[in-house]
Amino acid sequence: MSYTVFSADTLRSFTETVFKSMGCSAAHASLAADVLIKADLRGIDSHGVARLSGYVRLWEKKRINATPNIRIVHETASTATIDGDGGLGLVIAPFAMQIAMQKAENCGSGWVSVRNSNHFGIAAYHTLMAVEKDMIGFAMTNASPLVAPTHANERLLGTNPMCYAFPAGKYPPVVVDMATSAAANGKLEIAQRTGKPVPEGWIIDKNGQPSTNPHELKEGGSLVPLGSDSTHGSHKGFGLGATVDILSAVLSGANYGPWVPPFVAFLEPPADPVGLGIGHFLGAMRVDGFRPKEEFKNHLDNWIQRFKSAKTIDPNQPVIIPGEPELEAEQDRKTNGIPLVNAVVEDLNALAAKLELAPLV
Amino acid sequence: MSYTVFSADTLRSFTETVFKSMGCSAAHASLAADVLIKADLRGIDSHGVARLSGYVRLWEKKRINATPNIRIVHETASTATIDGDGGLGLVIAPFAMQIAMQKAENCGSGWVSVRNSNHFGIAAYHTLMAVEKDMIGFAMTNASPLVAPTHANERLLGTNPMCYAFPAGKYPPVVVDMATSAAANGKLEIAQRTGKPVPEGWIIDKNGQPSTNPHELKEGGSLVPLGSDSTHGSHKGFGLGATVDILSAVLSGANYGPWVPPFVAFLEPPADPVGLGIGHFLGAMRVDGFRPKEEFKNHLDNWIQRFKSAKTIDPNQPVIIPGEPELEAEQDRKTNGIPLVNAVVEDLNALAAKLELAPLV
Repeated sequence: MSYTVFSADTLRSFTETVFKSMGCSAAHASLAADVLIKADLRGIDSHGVARLSGYVRLWEKKRINATPNIRIVHETASTATIDGDGGLGLVIAPFAMQIAMQKAENCGSGWVSVRNSNHFGIAAYHTLMAVEKDMIGFAMTNASPLVAPTHANERLLGTNPMCYAFPAGKYPPVVVDMATSAAANGKLEIAQRTGKPVPEGWIIDKNGQPSTNPHELKEGGSLVPLGSDSTHGSHKGFGLGATVDILSAVLSGANYGPWVPPFVAFLEPPADPVGLGIGHFLGAMRVDGFRPKEEFKNHLDNWIQRFKSAKTIDPNQPVIIPGEPELEAEQDRKTNGIPLVNAVVEDLNALAAKLELAPLV
Repeated sequence: MSYTVFSADTLRSFTETVFKSMGCSAAHASLAADVLIKADLRGIDSHGVARLSGYVRLWEKKRINATPNIRIVHETASTATIDGDGGLGLVIAPFAMQIAMQKAENCGSGWVSVRNSNHFGIAAYHTLMAVEKDMIGFAMTNASPLVAPTHANERLLGTNPMCYAFPAGKYPPVVVDMATSAAANGKLEIAQRTGKPVPEGWIIDKNGQPSTNPHELKEGGSLVPLGSDSTHGSHKGFGLGATVDILSAVLSGANYGPWVPPFVAFLEPPADPVGLGIGHFLGAMRVDGFRPKEEFKNHLDNWIQRFKSAKTIDPNQPVIIPGEPELEAEQDRKTNGIPLVNAVVEDLNALAAKLELAPLV
């Protein structure tokens, strides 16, 4: 596969221009671009500018509102429900996290369930906002159904990621950011592009039998929950995906389970919605709501150091602290630029032509 | 294996008497007994009266304080840290959940990190306290190290369970209660008793190679995180176990990672503790802090109904809603009694003799 390398600034500025041409305010366009570029910087290529034309197609179908009136519809001192008015999740989720952080500032913690939103980018963007303020960040979102619960051969849950981020002292933050399926959809997409079979334990075919065909989902197959099968605890992955769905959507009034609208514009949303848009759940807890923050950071540093120095099976493969590979990618790509697959470059340039904007290259 | 069946009342009264003879107050003895018997009722035999003599042995070694002064050491309106004074986790965790629920009553949610505690029984006991009050319950605990992080062949984390519970309307609550390892230690113990090999993907030997020997842990092996191996997402199970460890212990000032003291009295705690006892994390959020509770319950009923009626691989094996099997066991055992393996009965009677109490049978 061939790549072209771009600076983060070039991609950010291009992305901002695209969002502005959709009618987003300058502030929203800048924030949404920042969320997407953060994904590319952190090496989560499936969630970065590669998705930009997808957002535009949803907007063309009037399934994304470029000028949403995002508002709190219900709240207590430490909780709130937000209606995103059908806007970009890339904008709504940071708004919700700001509310959570304000509440945490005032009373120790803040928890926000969000309805009427759309894809929110990488969860780590939102939790890292909390970490910047010495808070612990939580972020989850539901997503269109791709995962079959244990025993089912029907797609009822999204890959429903959960993310937890903790501020450390001398070390970078610990950031757990994971799909609750055995394999993230991004990994499947890579296999689809290269045409290579995937490992057993990632997907099942339409009859519920294990499959290694990366295109199985088009033929009625499903991703499986973390744990892969019931012998290895897939009911736990199902339970985690269910938890994300309930906190994000049953709690806020968004669509849940099989009613979650698809991210792709060529598939229509279900005709019988049970709520509004897709749902997220975001939270922030002040570290010093529990103990002095320097104490916490010193102990988290000690935790990280102990795990990094664990005895390992292969002496050349140390234990990876959650968040470490993404931070390494970010440091590298900030300096050396972001490589985009040429198919993505062509897609972005076609998008620019359609919107009558300057091309990327 | 042969069993004797006892009523819950018989076991509860026996257990209460044992805790009282340790010096626990009547209220503490009654509460601790209730937590243990709830495990037996729900079919989690590994966490019920089978553990009673283990608690007594820790008390004999002065590693459990029968008359703890459980107190809040730090708090905000929605958060608190509790020091359990080395008491029974069976008593400390419900105390912490009460604090979380009071805070939720006052400001929407409450979050309590606990240090200086001990094994807290089944997590679902604590989350169901919140569900009774139309709150969403969260409970986690760290535990003595049995699990090797991805790439390691050293035990650094406990099976660190997480539990989420949600109140429904006409259906029973959804209760996700799961070890973050591929297999819970209880399942391994069953295989040890029967001498049967365990499935590949549950444990590794001391060199980090897959093993099916249920006794492998005695020879330096480890349990593995949910996901089993890196191809199937074991870094996610590791990330979840790490999250539980950090929220329960780094946040409260308890011991974490390999420093968590063992539950078994014949193993000494590490000589260089990094905190006090073991740690828990409990939370409660009022459903009506987000939306009217009847709306939430109606939608959760709809969620449950949709998942229960999913298309399944085997028409005779429906999707299991998290918490359903435990509730079925509870209903059955409340009526028909609790079967105890005779080895457990003998152990309890030996305990009674040692404490000069009336035997169980």
